[in-house]
Amino acid sequence: MSETVKVVVDAMGGDNAPAEPVKAAVEAATQRQNIQVILAGRKDVIEQELAKYPDYPRERISVYHASEVIETAEPPVAAIRKKKDSSIVAGMNLVRRQEADAFVSSGSTGAVLVGGQVLVGRLKGVQRPPLAPLIPTQKGVSLLIDCGANVDARPSHLVQFAQMGSIYMEHVMGIQKPRVAIVNIGAEEEKGNALVKETFPLLKACEDIHFIGSIEARDIPAGGADVIVCEAFVGNVILKLYEGLGGTMISMIKEGMMGSARSKVGALLVKPALKETLKSFDATRYGGAPLLGLRGLVVKTHGSAKSTEIRNAIFQCGQFREQRINEKIGDFLVKAVSPEEKSL
Amino acid sequence: MSETVKVVVDAMGGDNAPAEPVKAAVEAATQRQNIQVILAGRKDVIEQELAKYPDYPRERISVYHASEVIETAEPPVAAIRKKKDSSIVAGMNLVRRQEADAFVSSGSTGAVLVGGQVLVGRLKGVQRPPLAPLIPTQKGVSLLIDCGANVDARPSHLVQFAQMGSIYMEHVMGIQKPRVAIVNIGAEEEKGNALVKETFPLLKACEDIHFIGSIEARDIPAGGADVIVCEAFVGNVILKLYEGLGGTMISMIKEGMMGSARSKVGALLVKPALKETLKSFDATRYGGAPLLGLRGLVVKTHGSAKSTEIRNAIFQCGQFREQRINEKIGDFLVKAVSPEEKSL
Repeated sequence: MSETVKVVVDAMGGDNAPAEPVKAAVEAATQRQNIQVILAGRKDVIEQELAKYPDYPRERISVYHASEVIETAEPPVAAIRKKKDSSIVAGMNLVRRQEADAFVSSGSTGAVLVGGQVLVGRLKGVQRPPLAPLIPTQKGVSLLIDCGANVDARPSHLVQFAQMGSIYMEHVMGIQKPRVAIVNIGAEEEKGNALVKETFPLLKACEDIHFIGSIEARDIPAGGADVIVCEAFVGNVILKLYEGLGGTMISMIKEGMMGSARSKVGALLVKPALKETLKSFDATRYGGAPLLGLRGLVVKTHGSAKSTEIRNAIFQCGQFREQRINEKIGDFLVKAVSPEEKSL
Repeated sequence: MSETVKVVVDAMGGDNAPAEPVKAAVEAATQRQNIQVILAGRKDVIEQELAKYPDYPRERISVYHASEVIETAEPPVAAIRKKKDSSIVAGMNLVRRQEADAFVSSGSTGAVLVGGQVLVGRLKGVQRPPLAPLIPTQKGVSLLIDCGANVDARPSHLVQFAQMGSIYMEHVMGIQKPRVAIVNIGAEEEKGNALVKETFPLLKACEDIHFIGSIEARDIPAGGADVIVCEAFVGNVILKLYEGLGGTMISMIKEGMMGSARSKVGALLVKPALKETLKSFDATRYGGAPLLGLRGLVVKTHGSAKSTEIRNAIFQCGQFREQRINEKIGDFLVKAVSPEEKSL
């Protein structure tokens, strides 16, 4: 049997806390024998929720009491510093002390990013831990790396993103020889802003990744690359436009179909097929966005995440641990360190 | 009657040249008495196309012979320099010599951008002429400024984009007090990369625009702002993702509806309503993307543009001329010049 993976779930984070995180914990621990979930947050509230599941696997779900809650609107750095007994700080400290392997939260993105860096800490050699969500494409999913909060990246950061992203897509998502591309405004090598122009030859020279060149934003939805490298500002724009445009188009189409009696009947008939199609275009079924390059895994799920997404994020942590992704990233970076850096 | 507007149309540019540009010229000149179109390109080819419209208004359509064609794949700067007798260079020179008011092309974006700057030339005071396409939203359209080729912009460029964009949306699109926002990765003022952080207070201090703060990419499709300010790399990513994601979702939905007999019947019933909805989400009906801040108007239509888009771009040139947009931009910039700049 595979080894046990300990995942801390932030029971207080997100719009649907504590109900959905607790439900996800119960589902995950019930469905997989090797998963152990630690629910971090206010004990009374969590136990009240757990009481709704009389048959939950008690031996694989525990509660770790944390009295405070970090709100989404709080400035992240101050929140992490002050609220030592919040579910995010207490939960991440469990990972830092290696009492758990991973931490999953639907809470404040800022606090999760800051906490990941200052509490869990970076792997040796990692310059910046990127937030790398999966985005849906016509072919499946692509990893969009980086969508974090560290803007104004340097070329060497982007090279590490490409390396970490490749390892993730190969070993967690099972994609052989993942195609790596850099977001650009044209396909030609000489195009781009200063950052892209400096990064392009470095990626080209990288032997351990399968670099296929530039990708224009237009080709992302069709699945033009598996690992899509960009700095966080651009990544954030892509991620949020994806969500916004998808939502707007679906609501416009629904509204449009309700416009006439004829199309209302049609809408009823196409509904099941349409639902199926849209489901395939939903990345949350793969889990959340990992914050890579840390001494433990931190996964950010949507603020509006339901139990399915959180449960899948817990499974994702299992896969991450079993595949020893961090060891692979560590090995890779040691190998990739340039002579000048080694001499430092 | 309103004064005559002379528009040069590149008859050789785009995937559907010369048929669609010629058709657009005929439609525009037929529908509006004050429009005069000059078709630039190979005379024999254009005349052959024109012959398909025996009743076209000969007094308002002329041909300006240019023997060369700039291909999309050619490096723009070299092409503009070498191909002096191309439809783009010859056509833009007509605007430069004030023998025409505007130039419309579906040809190479790079060549149009370069040609606009070096041939037509910038208005006095304009630091960078931005390419500003209209993008569809749930409420109508927004102006995305800049999507051009000049990456790595400075804060003062972005401020001018906001000013020119406001004038355009107010006087060409008829939007009173257009809401101006800067693309950012969060709504708070302290968020953003170095460029956004520096630009934000400058926009806030701008008295002649209606600045509403940051806009996250997620809120663009819902119509969260009328003038969306960003540097060209980010603008390009937004524009192309818009096109790519829209196309991918529509094709997935169509495919999904063809999956079962039941949904096929439904698809037939919803088709007219769906078509109407998607038509409302198509910015090409407003025309093309203007290159603002030049001593004449240059409008870039899609490479795949059909006559409708090109015709609307011709009408757009009329509106631009009638509303004296360039005079308004000129006045505005003189007024907006800071004391230090004045002393230069």
